Amino acid sequence: MLISKSLESAINEQIGRELGAQMQYINIASYFTAENMLLFGKLFFNQAAEENGHALKFVPYALDAGGRIAVPAIPLARADFNSPADAVAAALKWEEDVTVQINGLMDLAVKEKDYIAQELLGWFVNEHHPQHY
Amino acid sequence: MLISKSLESAINEQIGRELGAQMQYINIASYFTAENMLLFGKLFFNQAAEENGHALKFVPYALDAGGRIAVPAIPLARADFNSPADAVAAALKWEEDVTVQINGLMDLAVKEKDYIAQELLGWFVNEHHPQHY
Repeated sequence: MLISKSLESAINEQIGRELGAQMQYINIASYFTAENMLLFGKLFFNQAAEENGHALKFVPYALDAGGRIAVPAIPLARADFNSPADAVAAALKWEEDVTVQINGLMDLAVKEKDYIAQELLGWFVNEHHPQHY
Repeated sequence: MLISKSLESAINEQIGRELGAQMQYINIASYFTAENMLLFGKLFFNQAAEENGHALKFVPYALDAGGRIAVPAIPLARADFNSPADAVAAALKWEEDVTVQINGLMDLAVKEKDYIAQELLGWFVNEHHPQHY
């Protein structure tokens, strides 16, 4: 097995978080759509689809490296937005949290000298970087 | 608002179940892939994507009808398959459960004379019918 047990476990957790992000963005997109802010709605529905794609990008990597997949339970996402600004702030908070999580995975991959994982995570580092600007 | 509160709530629950189905199928597909049964893996990864599409089909319907979306928490899916037969049985169990859930939603839509919901749910009835054969 090319992937360590600790990295396998961390990647499974991250798959859950990316799917959780999808659900958060579905709620945010739905909020904007219901408020008739349709372009914001469309933007966040697209973002929801992207997060689903992120989750699914980890799966073949872990399997190719001999790992197993067990998607964790997904906690309740926020749906109680007070204002458009509040909904956008919730989205930004998610992106910041995910950046910290990806950095944590990279720390683990560097520590374990897992260069395949580092290549994969490098893609996520690049993906997340411009989303803060 | 065209959608009743009870149907809005039931549709939100169903969105959670379809996303839960997606996660169950990711686990099943990953099991088959790890066991080197790659075509079964591919089949169930496709099924996972379909379930995600089902969840997302309910969202614009509920929003168009004046409802709100709050995706529920998603319980842990099974990942401890003893055999390929066990994994296939888990998938069949999901499909049967979803058929019962869709029928329950249709009962509610009929009771409420919500013809728009009945049209949407009719699509799901047709979609689920052939998956049992």
